Amino acid sequence: MSAADLMAVLFSDYLRYDFDAPENTANDHLVFSKGHASPLLYALYKAAGAIDDEELLTFREFGSRLQGHPTPELPWVDVATGSLGQGLPISVGIALAASRLEQSDLRVWVLCGDSELAEGSMWEAFEHAGYAKLDNLIAIVDVNRLGQRGPTMHEWDTSSLAARASACGWDVQEIDGHDLEAIDAAYTKAQDADRPAVIFARTKKGSGVAAVEDKENQHGKPLADPEAAVEELGGIRSLSVSVQSPPPPKPFEIAMAAVERPTYQVGEKVATRGAYGDALAWIGSIDEKVVALDGEVGNSTYAERFAAKHPDRFFEMYIAEQQMVAAAVGMQARGWKPFASSFGAFLSRAYDFVRMAAISDADLKLCGSHVGVSIGPDGPSQMALEDIASLRAVVGSIVLYPSDANQAVQLVDAMREHRGVSYLRTTREATPVLYEPDEAFRIGGSRTLRSSDDDVVTLVGAGITLRECLSAADELAGKGIAARVIDLYSVKPVDAETLVAAATETGAVVTVEDHWTEGGIGEIVATTLADAGVSAKLARLAVTERPGSGPPEALLAAAGIDADHVVAAVERITNAR
Amino acid sequence: MSAADLMAVLFSDYLRYDFDAPENTANDHLVFSKGHASPLLYALYKAAGAIDDEELLTFREFGSRLQGHPTPELPWVDVATGSLGQGLPISVGIALAASRLEQSDLRVWVLCGDSELAEGSMWEAFEHAGYAKLDNLIAIVDVNRLGQRGPTMHEWDTSSLAARASACGWDVQEIDGHDLEAIDAAYTKAQDADRPAVIFARTKKGSGVAAVEDKENQHGKPLADPEAAVEELGGIRSLSVSVQSPPPPKPFEIAMAAVERPTYQVGEKVATRGAYGDALAWIGSIDEKVVALDGEVGNSTYAERFAAKHPDRFFEMYIAEQQMVAAAVGMQARGWKPFASSFGAFLSRAYDFVRMAAISDADLKLCGSHVGVSIGPDGPSQMALEDIASLRAVVGSIVLYPSDANQAVQLVDAMREHRGVSYLRTTREATPVLYEPDEAFRIGGSRTLRSSDDDVVTLVGAGITLRECLSAADELAGKGIAARVIDLYSVKPVDAETLVAAATETGAVVTVEDHWTEGGIGEIVATTLADAGVSAKLARLAVTERPGSGPPEALLAAAGIDADHVVAAVERITNAR
Repeated sequence: MSAADLMAVLFSDYLRYDFDAPENTANDHLVFSKGHASPLLYALYKAAGAIDDEELLTFREFGSRLQGHPTPELPWVDVATGSLGQGLPISVGIALAASRLEQSDLRVWVLCGDSELAEGSMWEAFEHAGYAKLDNLIAIVDVNRLGQRGPTMHEWDTSSLAARASACGWDVQEIDGHDLEAIDAAYTKAQDADRPAVIFARTKKGSGVAAVEDKENQHGKPLADPEAAVEELGGIRSLSVSVQSPPPPKPFEIAMAAVERPTYQVGEKVATRGAYGDALAWIGSIDEKVVALDGEVGNSTYAERFAAKHPDRFFEMYIAEQQMVAAAVGMQARGWKPFASSFGAFLSRAYDFVRMAAISDADLKLCGSHVGVSIGPDGPSQMALEDIASLRAVVGSIVLYPSDANQAVQLVDAMREHRGVSYLRTTREATPVLYEPDEAFRIGGSRTLRSSDDDVVTLVGAGITLRECLSAADELAGKGIAARVIDLYSVKPVDAETLVAAATETGAVVTVEDHWTEGGIGEIVATTLADAGVSAKLARLAVTERPGSGPPEALLAAAGIDADHVVAAVERITNAR
Repeated sequence: MSAADLMAVLFSDYLRYDFDAPENTANDHLVFSKGHASPLLYALYKAAGAIDDEELLTFREFGSRLQGHPTPELPWVDVATGSLGQGLPISVGIALAASRLEQSDLRVWVLCGDSELAEGSMWEAFEHAGYAKLDNLIAIVDVNRLGQRGPTMHEWDTSSLAARASACGWDVQEIDGHDLEAIDAAYTKAQDADRPAVIFARTKKGSGVAAVEDKENQHGKPLADPEAAVEELGGIRSLSVSVQSPPPPKPFEIAMAAVERPTYQVGEKVATRGAYGDALAWIGSIDEKVVALDGEVGNSTYAERFAAKHPDRFFEMYIAEQQMVAAAVGMQARGWKPFASSFGAFLSRAYDFVRMAAISDADLKLCGSHVGVSIGPDGPSQMALEDIASLRAVVGSIVLYPSDANQAVQLVDAMREHRGVSYLRTTREATPVLYEPDEAFRIGGSRTLRSSDDDVVTLVGAGITLRECLSAADELAGKGIAARVIDLYSVKPVDAETLVAAATETGAVVTVEDHWTEGGIGEIVATTLADAGVSAKLARLAVTERPGSGPPEALLAAAGIDADHVVAAVERITNAR
């Protein structure tokens, strides 16, 4: 109710949107960053003729697409909101794609709450949009003074917020959000601004109904007397609004540089993070939809190799991982295929954004470099040791962990073709190339590198621990112990069939991972075997104590995940049989 | 090298710190938010006589406490840094504790990088410190213009940053960070300000060595000619600095309200989130070190019940989960026992802060409410479904998931007594009280509610799914199928002994959880049994598809985790034996 006037003016005179053709690329975007205003959004859809009264009344019912917070199950919704502070940064991504990639004239309108301006991610968005001079982005802040449990920090004093937005390079207005003429004038000025525009609109929560207007403790609660409220608002009416259609879409062209598919010689030492950069540059040359974003570490993730070849499709997002992931989500809402990279450890900064991306059914490709203790001297703050656990626990996600450079190239291309949230885990250290460039790898696959009928144990590793497994297998062979070695490069989904067969045939399994013991490869293997009803001796080697700094080899040994520990584990569990 | 002049002036004339007594509560704090400046920090320790040359040369070596980024393994370091954008928000927590709780005169000095000002968390800190008027907080921003891969957005133009900080209510100065007199004057003004103070100091990366000074592509790289650099800097010297000691600590008093331990009647329906609020208010009355923080949802998490009884120890952090967790980390650095709460889903926003808290060996207690699909109509954006997986994968963490209100009270008290990162998962819906108030529950325990020699299956649940397990057991009993029921309220550490015995005795296990299938209770149980070499039929019921809105019962049924699905799973796996 606080934002109804704001949205009424937007729908009648400013928004350009064909509700019969939400796929029209020339449509404006409207993002409700304050997703809890969903009743308003759905009422607007009803007024615009997109849904009918009957559907409107299914609000929050089981099976209805009118959920408590908007999701793209509704064709007019780009992205799920409801975790505050995400709609604006995602809209920055939409605006970046529209202006930088597509040279489109569309506008991105975002309805924000005032409470969510406490989220730092909103200020990442203000900063980046101002820096990128996104004149197609208009944020409307519904300053209704009241959060869920009480007043906001600034209530109706918008001066501090306005000064900050202005300092970020935005066109800033402060208005009465219930003054229709003021709203109208503000929208006209905002859409003509040569920079991103924000309108701080002072409003009253529950506007128009005295029983709740500007009162605390009413958040998310039904009215005590809805009939009286309807009467007070002017009685039952059936308002409809004619939303103007957009101009025809304009064609655009993408510059395509030719880049050869990278290949590496078996035995050469190459870091998979390097292969990621090479592969990204390559797929950028075969698929114009591929774009890349990085969090100011492109010389470590090697996203800089994409930037060098395809500068128009590369986005430097600086040290703002939430904005980086949000921008990627925004870009995919316009059909782009974004690859966003940082140190794996720092992707944890954007975990809520990845969680919400999955609810948005987003096509989001992530790459986290510098995983595990094997990064060495930089110490634990830089080591991703929880990324498998956390990113597996994202609905529908894919988690890949390449063990050599040629495989990494193929998995990056598989991520390009896969639609959904996917994550590639890359290694800092150079490791030996194991596979020929033309060997095939797929999401959900694995590779058995050593196998014989005499195998008495199966070693399961991926990434840098596969190298340790192979060394261990060599040493064990010298002792007359035959070990099967499986490269579990697809962590989710996992190749259960191969694991179950190997456990059944060898009777003993050792898993080795450069990751905490919780939620990683060991638990995946244990669960896979338990689900299949297969009993095998199991040793799970993983990182269990907080590491420090040191050479990679010393840290692998200290964590108990190097070849020596694999050998010891094999001897322990096979002797125990 | 860019910040050496800034820190030299600080150490010689401003910092009040007894390096022989880091436990002295009157010491100032010095936080290197730009943790990668660790060589400078360690050099300062050496100059102050805290460490010697020999130890300084162990930098980044295995086993050395002089890690790549600072951690509290060094007694003068409060918190681990190295994930950028965390030191300032944590310092806000230190400053809040010192001023609001302890009425201390100490100051909190924070060295920040300019690159990290792209992180929204830094602006959450600027906002909150300004709002709280923390005049004991002084941020020094080393504006050296260069990030790891190139120039920052603003380079040496600090005007935008300064305007924003000023709008947040800070005292702001912009100086030449190599002008010793300017630094001196700025510190004097900053420490006398009646508000938080920030000094934007324009500096040169690699200052003083022409080969690298203000040059790109030198980040984190050793000098090509260190001898020449030493010569250029004035030759080998052994500088020492006498750091002034603080004044004697001042005593302070905490107001203690009397609150009875909450108890609930068996059979009564109480939400565990309500029990959390009641318990928090209670432990606040028996332990003056308990403080509480909430992310503007205290009327949902019920942290408001603590606030009502102990207003001086309650901190409203608004919708800024990163700042909330960071403030808690800062407070525990001063010996407080902080409980920080929000919706479980939104704690994912602060995941990197929890990860780093564990590296800081912090005493951090978290509570996430509104977990799982059983929250009902608000939809998936509000449902924590990944919290067990992600928060288990934090080194040394504890994860608790109470199944009734009396148990929740005991677990909250157990969290108070436990030192480390712990997480309590609470349920939105009211569920039946199962246990008497005086039944004992402990971290690492479980409770077997139904057990007989005839049991042919074990049902494992926690929280709302325990209720479903009990209903299923009743229905199965009617069919002549005896089911053991285990309340797995301690998810990490888990009671392996009880699980293994139950699986061995009953031969079949059904796990039921309101959480994604990845990294949750099912995988924990499967892994526990596999580690023990126990083979049992296993069915893991968990959420596998993106839920929508609806009544809790409908959503539990749709996810396949209600009593009916438990019965069906039991029939399926026991028939299969």
